[in-house]
Order: sequence, then structure tokens, then C-alpha cells
Amino acid sequence: MQPKESRGDFAHSLDITVRFAETDQMGVVHHASYIVWFEAGRVAWMGGAGLPYAQISKAGYNFAVTDVQCRYRSALRFGDPVQVITRLVSLRSRQVEFSYEVFNSDSGVLCAAGRTSHICVDNSGAMTRIPDWVAEGLTGNVRSAA
Amino acid sequence: MQPKESRGDFAHSLDITVRFAETDQMGVVHHASYIVWFEAGRVAWMGGAGLPYAQISKAGYNFAVTDVQCRYRSALRFGDPVQVITRLVSLRSRQVEFSYEVFNSDSGVLCAAGRTSHICVDNSGAMTRIPDWVAEGLTGNVRSAA
Amino acid sequence: MQPKESRGDFAHSLDITVRFAETDQMGVVHHASYIVWFEAGRVAWMGGAGLPYAQISKAGYNFAVTDVQCRYRSALRFGDPVQVITRLVSLRSRQVEFSYEVFNSDSGVLCAAGRTSHICVDNSGAMTRIPDWVAEGLTGNVRSAA
Amino acid sequence: MQPKESRGDFAHSLDITVRFAETDQMGVVHHASYIVWFEAGRVAWMGGAGLPYAQISKAGYNFAVTDVQCRYRSALRFGDPVQVITRLVSLRSRQVEFSYEVFNSDSGVLCAAGRTSHICVDNSGAMTRIPDWVAEGLTGNVRSAA
Repeated sequence: MQPKESRGDFAHSLDITVRFAETDQMGVVHHASYIVWFEAGRVAWMGGAGLPYAQISKAGYNFAVTDVQCRYRSALRFGDPVQVITRLVSLRSRQVEFSYEVFNSDSGVLCAAGRTSHICVDNSGAMTRIPDWVAEGLTGNVRSAA
Repeated sequence: MQPKESRGDFAHSLDITVRFAETDQMGVVHHASYIVWFEAGRVAWMGGAGLPYAQISKAGYNFAVTDVQCRYRSALRFGDPVQVITRLVSLRSRQVEFSYEVFNSDSGVLCAAGRTSHICVDNSGAMTRIPDWVAEGLTGNVRSAA
Repeated sequence: MQPKESRGDFAHSLDITVRFAETDQMGVVHHASYIVWFEAGRVAWMGGAGLPYAQISKAGYNFAVTDVQCRYRSALRFGDPVQVITRLVSLRSRQVEFSYEVFNSDSGVLCAAGRTSHICVDNSGAMTRIPDWVAEGLTGNVRSAA
Repeated sequence: MQPKESRGDFAHSLDITVRFAETDQMGVVHHASYIVWFEAGRVAWMGGAGLPYAQISKAGYNFAVTDVQCRYRSALRFGDPVQVITRLVSLRSRQVEFSYEVFNSDSGVLCAAGRTSHICVDNSGAMTRIPDWVAEGLTGNVRSAA
């Protein structure tokens, strides 16, 4: 197979309830918590693709984060029901990008949106080609959703 | 005074030692930890400017984060000595931007670089003009370093 | 009503999936993460009792933690399905205690067990009597499960 | 050498400044943050003993936490200067215990006190005897402080 730039329509939705520990003294969710939710959304996306990240990780591969961006639009508070929508943005031989939208599920308000870029690394931390079975899992997911 | 776009040369350096809790199962510092360090660097920058953020916060103002970006270049590990260099990038009537560089203090390697944007909010969470005494503190710092 | 020492049989079960960010470089869940899960379990217990903690908190009351204990028996790993079983241990006019058991839902293994004690505080942080409507909610839950 | 029950007078003091991210919506430091500080205090204790934990960890040994207790007495707030005093409580062939006191350095108030127990594990996570060079480092520290 040839990993290639691909824009998937497959969006995975993850439900989260805001934890007390995720708030800060401004009374809202701390901005770093969203980055952790992005990760949870990404992991759930892979699970939805039939490719659990724990399995990739146990096989000795990891998607190290090279870039994170997040734009915050509206605050979330303790107890709020949250929906993290994750999409695969691009897939190359050694890199993968995901995008995220974080909604308040009650109000439907978009609270944050962002993007992460990743390189595939092996157990020694060296950059490596994304194994075929992983790339196929990722694109298969996109295709099956097309 | 007139808050205005200003590019400061004043860089504040904060020393951090990587905590065990800041690592993840890849054996390196988790990417969300850098966002927390940016915040610590920003707070230390303000302290260095004679304008402790705790004082701003107690006066009822906060710099809510509207944007975060971080590019990761080289991993940090448990126990590594870290230097966070923070700079004020721009200051407007309601907004402020900071940039960050995270170094491994032992090797001198740049491990991550990023930027945050903020709006000033009052205790109710509503956007508000940065109070003069705060803007003066921020620019005074830049000027005194010029 | 008379808040009193009461031992509830009502156990609430919360399902959690281990987040990558909750691991550390030993490859297992960091021990502080369990304390955050205890809190999530406690909050879910209250929700199950028809007494959302967010509602108590908005009314100006909080259950400040005065004591935490946790015994760790078996490690949890990234992606593991986790069950947090929470029970009300005792309820007094100003204090409440909960106990927790954390299981690996796949294997059924008990991974950790602990307890937290709390005092009721008002918005100023001063200790106060647990409001009747809160105490009734807590004991009603226990009773209804009896 | 014979690792044995030993009560050390050697106390290591670690200075921390409360991070914004360590607060919660009650406006105080979240209780789980203290557990992370205990760990930082313990690591600093070992560093003070000339036995950096990173070195133990790189050699393939870890002190897995088996028990945590913390009693909270007085709240800490964002920006507060904190002192974590760590002591070795006991050392056995496979186990070690530390105690902690967390002070507000400004006021001198004791804010929290706790204890952790640990077993020595190897890279596979199996319990193992504490290597002699580690036990000697730990007790040497106690002796040299006597």
C-alpha cells in the first residue's frame, strides 16, 4: 500500500464529563486539560478504526507529538458534558495529523478547536516509517467511512 | 497611557526540574506538561516584571488563554534540568501574547518552542480592557529591559 | 433531619478508560491519577444519588478533602478499562467519608483501594454544617439502596 | 551491608511555587497536587543523598508506590511559596517509607502531612530486593546527617 495524503470524513465522537481536577481557580477548565482530551479523542478515533493505540504502542511504535495548536472559544465548567470530535487530517509515510473540535454537549457550543501533528517513532525514540498494518488501519477507517 | 503593539527584548528565564509525574509511558515528558510550563514561565515573567500574576488575579483580572501553539523538537526526560525562556510578543488594549522556548539546561538543546495568546477577563469571565496599572507593568518591564 | 453515622450499601460504579497522559515512565498509571479517579467516582456517586456535586458547588458549598489514603495492589496500564466503585462510609453534621475500590474491568483484579474524608466548607472556605438538603440527598441515597 | 529498619533525622527541604494549573475551582491547590509534590520531595531527598532517582531508574529499579496517605490542614493558593520537608521513615530489604510535611514558607503554617510506602521493582515490574548500592546510599544519607 502507499500511504498518502488523505482527508478523511470519518469523525469519531468521544464523550467526556469535566472532572473537578480539570478546573482551575478561574472556575473553568484549565487550558492544558484540552490537550489531554485531544489525546483521548485521538486514541478513541483509533479504537473506532479497529486499531487500538495500546496495540500500536505494545508493538513498539508511538505517534510522538510534534505540534499542538488549540484555539479556545468558550469556557467549560466542572460537570459539563463534553464531546470531542476527532478527524484524521493527513497521513504520510512517517507523519499523521488529527484535528479536534470540543463541544459542550448540552448547549452544542463549540468551545475549542485544534490540531496535532505526529511522527512515528520506534521504542528507541527514533523516527520511523509508519508500519503498513498501521497505515492501512488508519486509511481503511477513512475509506470505510467514505 | 496607550497600550500598543510592542516587541520586548526582556526575556525571563525559569528553571524547572522534570518531575516523575510529568513523564508518560514513552519514557519522556508528556506533551501537555509543556503547556503547564509555558504558564509557569509566563507567571515568572510577570513576577520578574514586578507584577505578580497572583496580584492581578486577586484584583479580579485574569489573562484567559485564547490560543496555544507548541512545536516539539527534542524529548525531555525525568530529572532533566529545564530552562523556560519567556518573552512578551505583543500587548494590545485587551490582548497579550507571549512566546516560549524550552531548553535542556544541561545540553543547551532547544526542546520545544511555542506561543500563547490571552484576553483580559474580569471575575465574571467577560472580556475587558487590560487595566492601566497592569499594562504599565507589562510595558515598563519591556522598556526597562531595552 | 439528623445527619448521623450511617453505613451505606449503595455503591456507585464509574467506568473509566486509562488515558495515555495518566501513565508515567514506569509504563503504568501514575499513583496520583487514582486520587483524581477517586474524586470522579465520588462525583459520580453523588450524581447517582440525584445530588450532582456541581449543584452543591454552585450553591456555595464544597466538600474539602481533609484526608486521603490509597493502597496500590496491582498496576493499571494505558487503555485498560477501569471500574471505580464508590461507597459512602459515614456522614456527620460537618463531615463525610467515602471509600473506593479500583478494578481492572477486564480481569476483575482489584488494583487499588482507598478512602477520603471531607469537611463541608462555604464559599469563604470556612467549615460549615452540611446543609439539610445535601445531607438528605446523601442519606436518601443510602436508604433507597437499602 | 544489612538494610534494616532505621529512622533518619535527615530531612530534605524542597522549595516549590504553586502553579496556576495546580489550583482548582475552589481557588486552592487541588488535593492531588500534594501527592505529586510528595514525589518531587522524595526525589529531591534522594538527590540530596547523592543518589539521584533518575540514576536508580536508569539502572532498572523503581520504587513503586504501595501506599499513600495525606492529611490536609490548611489550604495553599496560587503563587504561594511552599516548602516540602521529606524524611526517610524506614528502610527494609524490599521496602522504604518516607514522610512529608508541606509548609507555606511565608506564614510557616503546616498545610499538609503525609507518608508513602514503596517496594522496589525491576524493569519487569516484579518486586525485588533493593540493590546494596541503593540501600547504602539511602542509609549513608541518614548516617551522615546523624
